[in-house]
Amino acid sequence: MGIIAAREGRCARPETASMSIPRVDGERLWSRLMAMAQIGATPKGGCNRQALTDGDLAGRELFARWARAAGCTVRVDAIGNLFAHRRGRAASSPAVLIGSHLDTQPTGGKFDGVYGVLGGLEVLETLNDRGLETERPLELAVWCNEEGCRFPAAMMGSAVWAGRMPLEAAYALTDRSGASVRGELERLGIDLKAPLERQPLAAALELHIEQGPVLEQRAKRIGIITGVQHMSRHEVTVLGQEAHAGPTPMEMRRDPIRVLADLLPRLYALTAAHGPQAKFTVGIIETFPGSPNTVPGRLRFTVDLRHPDLESYRALRAEAEREVAAALARHRLEGGIECVWQAPGVVFDAGCIAAVRDAAAALELDALEMVSGAGHDSVNVAAVAPTAMIFVPCAQGLSHNEAESASPADVENGANVLLNAVLKLANT
Amino acid sequence: MGIIAAREGRCARPETASMSIPRVDGERLWSRLMAMAQIGATPKGGCNRQALTDGDLAGRELFARWARAAGCTVRVDAIGNLFAHRRGRAASSPAVLIGSHLDTQPTGGKFDGVYGVLGGLEVLETLNDRGLETERPLELAVWCNEEGCRFPAAMMGSAVWAGRMPLEAAYALTDRSGASVRGELERLGIDLKAPLERQPLAAALELHIEQGPVLEQRAKRIGIITGVQHMSRHEVTVLGQEAHAGPTPMEMRRDPIRVLADLLPRLYALTAAHGPQAKFTVGIIETFPGSPNTVPGRLRFTVDLRHPDLESYRALRAEAEREVAAALARHRLEGGIECVWQAPGVVFDAGCIAAVRDAAAALELDALEMVSGAGHDSVNVAAVAPTAMIFVPCAQGLSHNEAESASPADVENGANVLLNAVLKLANT
Repeated sequence: MGIIAAREGRCARPETASMSIPRVDGERLWSRLMAMAQIGATPKGGCNRQALTDGDLAGRELFARWARAAGCTVRVDAIGNLFAHRRGRAASSPAVLIGSHLDTQPTGGKFDGVYGVLGGLEVLETLNDRGLETERPLELAVWCNEEGCRFPAAMMGSAVWAGRMPLEAAYALTDRSGASVRGELERLGIDLKAPLERQPLAAALELHIEQGPVLEQRAKRIGIITGVQHMSRHEVTVLGQEAHAGPTPMEMRRDPIRVLADLLPRLYALTAAHGPQAKFTVGIIETFPGSPNTVPGRLRFTVDLRHPDLESYRALRAEAEREVAAALARHRLEGGIECVWQAPGVVFDAGCIAAVRDAAAALELDALEMVSGAGHDSVNVAAVAPTAMIFVPCAQGLSHNEAESASPADVENGANVLLNAVLKLANT
Repeated sequence: MGIIAAREGRCARPETASMSIPRVDGERLWSRLMAMAQIGATPKGGCNRQALTDGDLAGRELFARWARAAGCTVRVDAIGNLFAHRRGRAASSPAVLIGSHLDTQPTGGKFDGVYGVLGGLEVLETLNDRGLETERPLELAVWCNEEGCRFPAAMMGSAVWAGRMPLEAAYALTDRSGASVRGELERLGIDLKAPLERQPLAAALELHIEQGPVLEQRAKRIGIITGVQHMSRHEVTVLGQEAHAGPTPMEMRRDPIRVLADLLPRLYALTAAHGPQAKFTVGIIETFPGSPNTVPGRLRFTVDLRHPDLESYRALRAEAEREVAAALARHRLEGGIECVWQAPGVVFDAGCIAAVRDAAAALELDALEMVSGAGHDSVNVAAVAPTAMIFVPCAQGLSHNEAESASPADVENGANVLLNAVLKLANT
């Protein structure tokens, strides 16, 4: 309402006047976020649309209907990435890519990924509303399996697209029930013979909620993301010997939980020794066979390690690996730690960062330059095109959580920054 | 072969002579153990016939066919306990009960429980072969859900039969998929309106593998079981807050794994402080939602505590409960420890113990008087009838393990002790 009032106050032809700093329709964007959140809605207000489930497909189909209605041509590549294309005046020039993902964690929120996709769509809708063409084509991407929670490779679709992961390796990934990416793509009717070519790009931007507490704590409205921290996922396996909990004396057991008891305090301690930016997360612990009165024959747990500083990250990882080996040796049990996924840290493109910085400044939004704590598809995109990201605050820094939330004003602000940065990158 | 040779050497009428110390047919018993192990056989040579699964039903049906062929009448009560009855000369006098269970752990062995049932059947077959009647009736029991791994109440069927667990509480138990005991009994065609009456008993004996290493280590052939240690199962729950593993600083997390890291070393240490007979087992650890890059919102793990000495058991349990509460308080997280099942220790009946002792002595088997580390249906039976148990060694003390094994000679020895102890108890 404030925006319309300002427009009307300034000029008899508001369309022309407001074009100096164009703005999105925040209400349309918000209502689409809420409509998408109905698909896979969870009782506690979150979303469960894990990659390549029926819910994920339904979300993608809703998006594709909206994109086609906005005049885009829509195609899906052989790994399930979905692209909506808007023509530019120079139809064959390299495009500006906007995009994120629609898949969620099992107890995810309404904004993680979805905001970047629907924020991008809102940019296209706003250009349509205003009859604006851009010099370069715009390409709106919905990357397949960003979360990596069902199939254990985060940012899978963008990694295959960027040539950083072999297509067959992605196809071969399986979920806990044994279903494969290949099988699920086929089940959902995605054509595995579709081209996997990478469109030429001039620049790429991704809009996202912060998923952390920094912007909120510092009362900043926009994060100008200059890079992404180093990160990797590991699986620790400990092999023990199944034995009855009653008659087997403690000293005769080969109990893998002993290794866990020994390791966990050490891993928290060494993380703390690498400063407040070091992160260590155990998200999954599983025991086999999983019976309350049987000493487990096998223990498996995941370790996620992150640090924005390369040297610290490498030290953290090497020390964690040494601690696992030492604990196994102390308890004379077999096992090990295996890196199942890693994403090197990224420094984003100076030109794309400047476009975001200038847009935030033009909109008079208080912004903070920061490094992303989470991995994003932009990590892969940055390997093949100039890239940057835009963050907005999310309540209490909560994400990967059904209670994840962002305010309508911040959601609108972020899309306005995206719109203006895209206009700059697509017209120069 | 040695027995036959001795028989033939001593007497022209071996049947009459050998009746002074009757012996079972070890080969028949062994072949039936192996036949039963085909049902639910696992690739590694163990068995998976968890309670009230199709495999469990198939095992019970095979047993019922054998029992009927041996002249028994078979009935099933309202909680799924199966009884095979052999008449005595004094048909209405209190019976001698023999029994154990046919259900197994998910990766269980061929002997745990099964040996007690088929050893009992072998006693009946031997009496038939020799045309022997007993004064008292014999009652061969197959108790329902002894393991308590699928439905979380070990020794369920015998507890309901003994009046120690309400029938409706047992019916209401559910497995991890949400299936209930009531629903599974109905699905398997077990009549919930069948009588649940407890037959009058003069004595009860249960034959079992040791499930521990003591007999093997001491080179003893028979364990004369004088009682069962105190034991209980607990569930610890820790509530945290789901958060993204990347951007959430460590000090802002509400991470339930911190409590696990803090608790596990303390629980192992306090167990050790209660001496070598104290036992602490964590069989199941689960994290929710269970995603490698999400700080868990909830952690659940099981704690099994045992000690043969009542005072030590009570102290161990109280200290473990205090440690859980203290760790939750230190980390300012909600949660708690709940006792989900307990079985007080038992001192067995002097008369039944004497019958086992005398039988082992008559058979010239080197025996050890000992307390059972594992719970057994006899714990419940002992509440309503004079009871004792007989153990035989199992290789490396391994049980609740697909590699569980016992030698044919030990299996035959144990059944011979059971036969002679039963004859004594059923004829006096």
